[in-house]
Amino acid sequence: MPIYTAPVKDQIFVLDDVLKLSADDVPGYDELDRDTLQAILDEAAKLAENVLAPLNPVGDAEGCTLENGVVRTPTGFKDAFDQLREGGWTALDCDPDYGGQGLPYVVATAVGEMFSAANMAFNMYPGLTHGAYNAIHAHGSDDQKQTYLPKMVTCEWGGTMNLTEPHCGTDLGLIRTKAEPQDDGSYAITGQKIWISAGEHDMCDNIIHLVLAKLPDAPEGVKGISLFIVPKFLVNEDGSLGARNAVSCGGLESKMGIHGNATCVMNYDGATGFLVGEKHKGMRAMFTMMNEARLGVGLQGFAQGAVAYQNALGFAQDRLQGRDVTGTKNPDGPADPIIVHPDVRRNLMDQKAFVEGARAFTYWGAALIDRAHRNQDAKAEGLISLMTPVIKGFLTDKGFETTVLAQQTLGGSGFTREWGLEQFVRDARITMIYEGTNGVQSLDLVGRKLGADGGKHVMRFFDMVKGFIAEHKGRDEAFDAQFLEPLKQASKDLQAAGMYFMQNGMKNPNNALSGSYDFMHLFGHVCLGLMWSRMALAAQARLDAGDGDTAFYETKIATGRYYMARQLPMTGTHLKRIESGAEPVMALEAAQF
Amino acid sequence: MPIYTAPVKDQIFVLDDVLKLSADDVPGYDELDRDTLQAILDEAAKLAENVLAPLNPVGDAEGCTLENGVVRTPTGFKDAFDQLREGGWTALDCDPDYGGQGLPYVVATAVGEMFSAANMAFNMYPGLTHGAYNAIHAHGSDDQKQTYLPKMVTCEWGGTMNLTEPHCGTDLGLIRTKAEPQDDGSYAITGQKIWISAGEHDMCDNIIHLVLAKLPDAPEGVKGISLFIVPKFLVNEDGSLGARNAVSCGGLESKMGIHGNATCVMNYDGATGFLVGEKHKGMRAMFTMMNEARLGVGLQGFAQGAVAYQNALGFAQDRLQGRDVTGTKNPDGPADPIIVHPDVRRNLMDQKAFVEGARAFTYWGAALIDRAHRNQDAKAEGLISLMTPVIKGFLTDKGFETTVLAQQTLGGSGFTREWGLEQFVRDARITMIYEGTNGVQSLDLVGRKLGADGGKHVMRFFDMVKGFIAEHKGRDEAFDAQFLEPLKQASKDLQAAGMYFMQNGMKNPNNALSGSYDFMHLFGHVCLGLMWSRMALAAQARLDAGDGDTAFYETKIATGRYYMARQLPMTGTHLKRIESGAEPVMALEAAQF
Repeated sequence: MPIYTAPVKDQIFVLDDVLKLSADDVPGYDELDRDTLQAILDEAAKLAENVLAPLNPVGDAEGCTLENGVVRTPTGFKDAFDQLREGGWTALDCDPDYGGQGLPYVVATAVGEMFSAANMAFNMYPGLTHGAYNAIHAHGSDDQKQTYLPKMVTCEWGGTMNLTEPHCGTDLGLIRTKAEPQDDGSYAITGQKIWISAGEHDMCDNIIHLVLAKLPDAPEGVKGISLFIVPKFLVNEDGSLGARNAVSCGGLESKMGIHGNATCVMNYDGATGFLVGEKHKGMRAMFTMMNEARLGVGLQGFAQGAVAYQNALGFAQDRLQGRDVTGTKNPDGPADPIIVHPDVRRNLMDQKAFVEGARAFTYWGAALIDRAHRNQDAKAEGLISLMTPVIKGFLTDKGFETTVLAQQTLGGSGFTREWGLEQFVRDARITMIYEGTNGVQSLDLVGRKLGADGGKHVMRFFDMVKGFIAEHKGRDEAFDAQFLEPLKQASKDLQAAGMYFMQNGMKNPNNALSGSYDFMHLFGHVCLGLMWSRMALAAQARLDAGDGDTAFYETKIATGRYYMARQLPMTGTHLKRIESGAEPVMALEAAQF
Repeated sequence: MPIYTAPVKDQIFVLDDVLKLSADDVPGYDELDRDTLQAILDEAAKLAENVLAPLNPVGDAEGCTLENGVVRTPTGFKDAFDQLREGGWTALDCDPDYGGQGLPYVVATAVGEMFSAANMAFNMYPGLTHGAYNAIHAHGSDDQKQTYLPKMVTCEWGGTMNLTEPHCGTDLGLIRTKAEPQDDGSYAITGQKIWISAGEHDMCDNIIHLVLAKLPDAPEGVKGISLFIVPKFLVNEDGSLGARNAVSCGGLESKMGIHGNATCVMNYDGATGFLVGEKHKGMRAMFTMMNEARLGVGLQGFAQGAVAYQNALGFAQDRLQGRDVTGTKNPDGPADPIIVHPDVRRNLMDQKAFVEGARAFTYWGAALIDRAHRNQDAKAEGLISLMTPVIKGFLTDKGFETTVLAQQTLGGSGFTREWGLEQFVRDARITMIYEGTNGVQSLDLVGRKLGADGGKHVMRFFDMVKGFIAEHKGRDEAFDAQFLEPLKQASKDLQAAGMYFMQNGMKNPNNALSGSYDFMHLFGHVCLGLMWSRMALAAQARLDAGDGDTAFYETKIATGRYYMARQLPMTGTHLKRIESGAEPVMALEAAQF
């Protein structure tokens, strides 16, 4: 069975040494000194390691079952959820006005990494609830907030997001679910939604569905979509549960992974719904918290990579096969551990360098969200909006790749269920698809975010990288050569790609759109290059100060060096692909395929 | 449910237009004119499309079961196997002396592509039998050949390869299975073998196990391994089945994919075995047909990509979401088919360009094997030995990637079992692992094949590419720019990588071994670049001659152009990684991870 050890030390290194949270001016950050962080993360680690991780293979093997409209979650899930609730983990970054703990989102992100790595399918139940909480918190009336949020903060009630219908996912303008106004001010919701994660289950007293639907007078397309609260049980004025609403689970999806999470077909048969926010403004309301939701998926992606890497590493340290060609390392054994072999090492370094870089990138993104929300910092908001599709698309692609690499480390054992690596691969796979496929992320990046506000956010990003290089250049020859030079080159490639889009996208938008996916990856590499440069600096500062665990900080620098030398050169290939333009991509007529 | 349409036209294009088989001097090739090929492949296509493909999801869902030592294969597998036998498909390239049809291996390869694409788990049963047939054919005594081969040619009897033990897979020198000489000249085989594909099942009257074991007087390591035939039922002198041998299936592996194939723990409890070839020379005997076996796995890898691509394409043509930004393509519908979107197109083109390039590469390799075996052509043997790890490693990595891309084309539907794409991903995954992991392939390539015979095979490969470029340069400006220039650049990168190994591998072998995986991929891209150049030439020749399907040949050229423009630039990144050497890869002590 796979193991999971929460990477608390690595997390604190990012939060405290690299991002220097407690020195920041964001409300709530001043309390995040090293000891407080340590205490919170240590407690979360216990739950992740001892409760959630052991249930991960159980959830995979058992899956969820639907019988007479009732969905049963796997053995142990309900108990684990109770422990999550009792520990207050569902309320971490929620509004204290509704019973939340008011901690920063970045702390919830670090905890979320652990819970997702330990048991992604499980953590989706509170995760989806949190998403629904966010939407109601941002757009609900005071009355709606009072009615639903306290119970959603504690996760006594769950929450879901209902967007997709059988004939439309990405193109939500096509949805058919109807909302008919009733005399009492409510709406009768009728239609079918599919792929609703946590749509029905046995772990919460009530489930609050957020549903996109169209009013009878709705304009065509996405401008005619409204958002509704549709509770599984209607809520009485005193807060007690009332009548069962006309919403039911019509089936469970059989799928590649995340078996422990119930992916439901939801049927709304004139169910009572309540409008959230304004009529026809449902898309905006649903997507207000999109940066956070998509960052959360990026987090899932690299978290699966992180746990897979841990297990690959353990195997590589233990498994004896062959001898080190430069000299036997384990003379008393029948063979050397496979970690001595350069190609196994390459594989492990690819995993390690990605996972740790991705962690820094994600936490940085989460800190930007805190800054945007708590300080109303428009620059931070612009920057995180720009980078959200990169975090989601790049980190889930690479996170999945990392699970595949980790599986490969185990050879044949990686293909067996027994070792659990193959589950990480199957679970990670969905992160590239949901919350907007990675192709859609790349369109969002190139078609929308790049040019937003006259392109000033991406300019600011380039200035930031340039400023970073200028600030640190010339102090340390090795750092210049191993970090700043490759970062500069990669950043130049990214700028050249942006320039190509500007010059050629005007003539033909397909010149930009054909390169959008490569651009997203190019951007991701530059961000991870920046993160590794920052981590190397922070580690060097610790080493210079002579405090802490020398080997730990030296390892950070060596791992960063690996990323810069072996991963960052990908930016050159991405640029070449982008600069080949639309012609090779679009040369065929659809019928010629 | 996924569909499969055998790509007969594409196959004949490769065999007849590109490789020009019937013009070749290999015995048996003169009969392979276009009509004969067409007739054979059309018949195979019917079986693949109508019998094997529909059983693919059945095999996945049901898997195999073990009860009281009996392994039951999924519903319909036995009937399908009977049809395979009755059609003579198991005997295609077998020796006529033992009932085979004596057709070239390259034809069996084309048929194998169909069967593997249609149902990989199923096709492993005859596939493994064929491998065992090959080993006995090459190394068995006349008596053994007479006893076993005729029944293995018809697949009335199955065959298996028993190498791996719980504590050793790659490092076979560590095996513990014992072979004790008996008075009658046979051996008593005792030990446990794991991951034995088709080790036990209900589709054949007998199963002939080929087992690696050690004699009591065996030298240490791989030089002390002998090969034995261990039949499930002993065979009487008259050819009838005798006593049940002391070999049994102790368990079935639960695994990520290929559920329809029984992956067995095999227990040998003093089972009667018969030495094949010389004592202590078992490794050599087992690996004689390694080129063919590994090419077969490369074939499986791209075949899964091929069927996945077909289904992705169908979805992209049908699914309506969003509008073409350059102008509506389907004004009467609610949206355009997603194939209009450049990023969907990029995804499909990546799949298509890989699959068709891989097909040409594999068939070319198979033709080299025919040439090596039938003409005793040492140059062909040297070339295919060099390229076998590339075919196996590169095509399975990219084949798996292609299934993942295809799954992505379907968005959320790709993650559901219903659409079947996720099965292709899970099935393809094993091809990167078995028959030597892809890491091991890269070591074989760089550590053994590159320097074999003083490096003359790789020199000959470079000369061949150079000669090809020189021969065709200057006739057509577009072809020069779109094919020959990128091929030349990629080939230069490959040579530079080889040069780096020569200059730095002497100082420290880890400088070569740290880049072995990148080298394998670099090599693969050059080979596919060469194949696409050859295909473009062949297609242009057809267009110039004004015969055949113009759109088909134009599509070939456009697809090739895509590969050259968008995939070949990867060679630059691989070279940079290689040239970064061992230092970043090996910087950490094993304990520092």
